[in-house]
Amino acid sequence: MARAPQSPLAVSLGDPAGIGPEVIAKCWDNREPFGLPPFVAIGDARSVAAVWDGPIEVVENPRQADAAFDYGLPLIQLNTPTADVPGHPSVGGAHTSLDALELAVGLARSGSAAAVVTGPVAKEQLYAIGFQHPGQTEFVAERCGVSPGNVVMMLAGPTLRTVPVTTHIPVSEIPARLSTALIESRGRAALRGLQRNFGIAEPRLAVSGLNPHAGEGGQLGREELEIIAPAIAALAAEGWRVSGPHPADTMFHARARANYDAALCMYHDQALIPIKALHFEDAVNVTLGLPIVRTAPDHGTAFDIAGQDRADPRPMAAAIRMAAENAALRTDAA
Amino acid sequence: MARAPQSPLAVSLGDPAGIGPEVIAKCWDNREPFGLPPFVAIGDARSVAAVWDGPIEVVENPRQADAAFDYGLPLIQLNTPTADVPGHPSVGGAHTSLDALELAVGLARSGSAAAVVTGPVAKEQLYAIGFQHPGQTEFVAERCGVSPGNVVMMLAGPTLRTVPVTTHIPVSEIPARLSTALIESRGRAALRGLQRNFGIAEPRLAVSGLNPHAGEGGQLGREELEIIAPAIAALAAEGWRVSGPHPADTMFHARARANYDAALCMYHDQALIPIKALHFEDAVNVTLGLPIVRTAPDHGTAFDIAGQDRADPRPMAAAIRMAAENAALRTDAA
Repeated sequence: MARAPQSPLAVSLGDPAGIGPEVIAKCWDNREPFGLPPFVAIGDARSVAAVWDGPIEVVENPRQADAAFDYGLPLIQLNTPTADVPGHPSVGGAHTSLDALELAVGLARSGSAAAVVTGPVAKEQLYAIGFQHPGQTEFVAERCGVSPGNVVMMLAGPTLRTVPVTTHIPVSEIPARLSTALIESRGRAALRGLQRNFGIAEPRLAVSGLNPHAGEGGQLGREELEIIAPAIAALAAEGWRVSGPHPADTMFHARARANYDAALCMYHDQALIPIKALHFEDAVNVTLGLPIVRTAPDHGTAFDIAGQDRADPRPMAAAIRMAAENAALRTDAA
Repeated sequence: MARAPQSPLAVSLGDPAGIGPEVIAKCWDNREPFGLPPFVAIGDARSVAAVWDGPIEVVENPRQADAAFDYGLPLIQLNTPTADVPGHPSVGGAHTSLDALELAVGLARSGSAAAVVTGPVAKEQLYAIGFQHPGQTEFVAERCGVSPGNVVMMLAGPTLRTVPVTTHIPVSEIPARLSTALIESRGRAALRGLQRNFGIAEPRLAVSGLNPHAGEGGQLGREELEIIAPAIAALAAEGWRVSGPHPADTMFHARARANYDAALCMYHDQALIPIKALHFEDAVNVTLGLPIVRTAPDHGTAFDIAGQDRADPRPMAAAIRMAAENAALRTDAA
């Protein structure tokens, strides 16, 4: 990507003991082949130096990052008392990861950064220091003044985008949790996100069924008839291009994918199995419904391989690239 | 594939009004590029002639098919009173499809055919003529003297094989239907099938979880701890190489797939979404647990496109190829 005339991206390092610092440093190393625009890392420089020999350019604000980017990894240093050890999460590291997230969101809210890309955090450690949100997404939503119920997670890869209606709940609870109102609201957020973040004027949404063969006319379950079809009808009545409910197993091959811009899926694995089967190395988690652009790689802290130079930077690179592209398309965001 | 010194394959045309006759004729047309061994079609020659201009070699038995295969599509003609029209299923056509299936299975049971490949049938039409089985698989099992509970469906593509534990039931019924005994029995059948049909001496089976993140230690569902893990332990105690329960969303990317020979999945879409996302054109339905080799393409009659020369023969070609490969590997089968 050519350098767009926009502010640099703010990239939080995530947990300093995880693979975040390593993959972000490797992204700077590979900024040319990966096609990455200028970005500024936010966190503790020691967590990067512990796993990487390259140059770090400590900066005071994102404005300095553009010039520094040619010489080293621009980094805004947080005031952290102790250095963390790769692979060994700590309470101090959780504080650092939260501070980095908070600063990155603030910079994007104020327009100093074009978008936020978040490195992976350790939820257990965050809970230990009093973090009250299910994850970074809900924290970002709150800091942006948006109800967590109005933001949706999209998984986006080069040839497929999926949005789960329900996420981290047991399979046994999915049928009771699904409602026409929930599917409508997630569908609307997905469609608006396709317009705002991806610049698709008339987005096409394909809605999956819940049951095998999308219920086969009611013989293999009635949720399609009673819950999903009415939501599709309601969205269509608003003028959106929505199709379904489609049998989930035949939605994700190449010819089927060409017929829609995003698939609205009923549950976590229905959305994540196809995206990770097809795009494991470059699937990006995009939060839709925010006043800012926020993306993240779709992997965790991977403490078990932290500090071993084994982490794959491609998912982080895909997240940075997509954040820049989304930010360039959005006229309403910073 | 070079011609193996084995009997020809018996290929039932399926419903004469569906796309079975067309894709089987196209397989003969493309027998060289598709690498297909000699096979004999079973059904009504008129259903082939209605959609294809190529030569048909009517034979009396599979022994004649080998010599005839160079000159035309070898076909055993059934005694069917009326010709069917493509796209218009009928009761007569259902009888023809059932007769073809019955004859194909008989030829394989007696050793006259090396394996059975079944064309797609129309279940509603079969039910109308008194067919009592859920599908062709259960019919074949009964004709082979095997309890339908002891056969399993495997979906097999070039880089992935999956076996669903439960199949055509609503999602709401999956948790109640899963049991340790059922997972064990399906897992054992899958492992034995990998040995017998695929020649893998020490097969590796990866077992999925039911819930997101395989239940995340019980926080997102307890089936992994209470039902699935005990089944894995029981199979491992028998000496099988079994791993899991794995989070389903990270089981199907290329590096993960390299770690197992088949994935045992808890429900229909968990098994079918990845296989069709990755291998839509060449996924084969293989029935394991039978005394004969039986494969089928993983598509239906597609009455809506029958007779329009639009049907893709690649899935049928993959089914024929895999039947020949499985038959060559099996020492216990005909």
